[in-house]
Amino acid sequence: MFYLIGLGLGDAKDITVKGLEIVKNCDKVYLEAYTSILTVGKETLEEFYGRPLILADRELCESSIDNVLEEAREKHIALLVVGDPLGATTHTDMLLRAKEFGVSTQIVHNASIMNAVSCCGLQLYNFGETVSIPYWTDTWKPDSFFEKIVANFARNLHTLCLLDIKVKEPTEESLTKKVRQYMDPKFMSVKEAAQQLIHIIENHPESEINKSTTAVGLCRVGAPDQKIAVSSIEAMQQCDLGPPLHSLVIPAPNLHPLELDYLAQFR
Amino acid sequence: MFYLIGLGLGDAKDITVKGLEIVKNCDKVYLEAYTSILTVGKETLEEFYGRPLILADRELCESSIDNVLEEAREKHIALLVVGDPLGATTHTDMLLRAKEFGVSTQIVHNASIMNAVSCCGLQLYNFGETVSIPYWTDTWKPDSFFEKIVANFARNLHTLCLLDIKVKEPTEESLTKKVRQYMDPKFMSVKEAAQQLIHIIENHPESEINKSTTAVGLCRVGAPDQKIAVSSIEAMQQCDLGPPLHSLVIPAPNLHPLELDYLAQFR
Repeated sequence: MFYLIGLGLGDAKDITVKGLEIVKNCDKVYLEAYTSILTVGKETLEEFYGRPLILADRELCESSIDNVLEEAREKHIALLVVGDPLGATTHTDMLLRAKEFGVSTQIVHNASIMNAVSCCGLQLYNFGETVSIPYWTDTWKPDSFFEKIVANFARNLHTLCLLDIKVKEPTEESLTKKVRQYMDPKFMSVKEAAQQLIHIIENHPESEINKSTTAVGLCRVGAPDQKIAVSSIEAMQQCDLGPPLHSLVIPAPNLHPLELDYLAQFR
Repeated sequence: MFYLIGLGLGDAKDITVKGLEIVKNCDKVYLEAYTSILTVGKETLEEFYGRPLILADRELCESSIDNVLEEAREKHIALLVVGDPLGATTHTDMLLRAKEFGVSTQIVHNASIMNAVSCCGLQLYNFGETVSIPYWTDTWKPDSFFEKIVANFARNLHTLCLLDIKVKEPTEESLTKKVRQYMDPKFMSVKEAAQQLIHIIENHPESEINKSTTAVGLCRVGAPDQKIAVSSIEAMQQCDLGPPLHSLVIPAPNLHPLELDYLAQFR
């Protein structure tokens, strides 16, 4: 049996009672460590669950997943995923592979940023398509996500922007070497996201979205030290919300009075 | 202190460990019983939590919420909500009222249909605006949600359709009487939703969405007897997925190969 278990967003106690029971009874438990992070680390989770965890990086979840599923034919194996386990394509793919292997699966859902973003007071049913903002490099500055934000804005919909995460990324130099070297992990802040957005806005002076458009910065959603900040995109460039994870929302231009009242708390 | 605690989607064990600890330690715990339901009832939850719960209907959550918040000035009061606690406007409103009362609040997030819908294999970031399909009456047949589905479809986005729930609705006749009488609770099925959609499609023969457009029916998401069915909207009119809650998805016209493969399991 193969279990995909969501851990929610904050700390060790955000796992569900159902999820915790499975974790305690499994033969082997992997902790996915590259699509998102909790506010606590592997050791804290191990202590809370009373059992060891095995870190699962991208290589294990993608190229080596068949070995895990092979094991799951005879044993109870769980993969713990921050947020909801079906937020990323990788996990849907795993479930299809499991079917090919004849391995039964169970999914334990949990909160993810896709629904917990409502903590800022913007209503979930007024969100349009979600976008991802990638880290730019000197030579690669994609901005196609901006069109999607503009399209949502034109339909009076909010946009949730998921911000880039780089964990265990091989350095460019090491790609051709035998021994892989990895970059330090980095997590895009609302400040960095706002800076990239301002660059794009400067290249699109005709756009409905400009420097003074409102942005909502969210940080460590679901944790006791969660922070929310509301300002113009321009001012968001100077907004320091502290440690990761961060997310950004560009609200629709015309808000419901209740949404306005709720956001006003964070200005 | 006032706590809003999400119960997730399936049964008693879908509460988080954090949520359960709070429930056990509160002075009074209300169970919201009109925006959604679990697959288990109040008695099962009371047994699992080892404490009594007070049913909270619409009147309590809207007109009488000030009394609850008044109590929360001195005591620990929790309101349990199926799914994530911030899925409905009512709860955002409660948090604003709590602030006016000077009452501290804590939100415990959980899975909701807004993220768990990914169990059908459609990727969350490819969903557009969510719509609600209301029960029609003889004299009231709103269809404005259809335009939103069409707009999502035109942008190659999926639409999650939340289906109507009628719990503790006063009968029309009783509205003018001193003693309120209530209708039996009813929950729209994917079958009923498909029937209403077919009516609308017949009135919009020029639309991109027609009788043979694919629909995904979801039922009791997150529960052990969860069911997913994929067919044309026309065929969905004959699809019986069993007890509530049901939801419907109209997928985008062009799907990712992984989405196609995953959906194929449910045809």
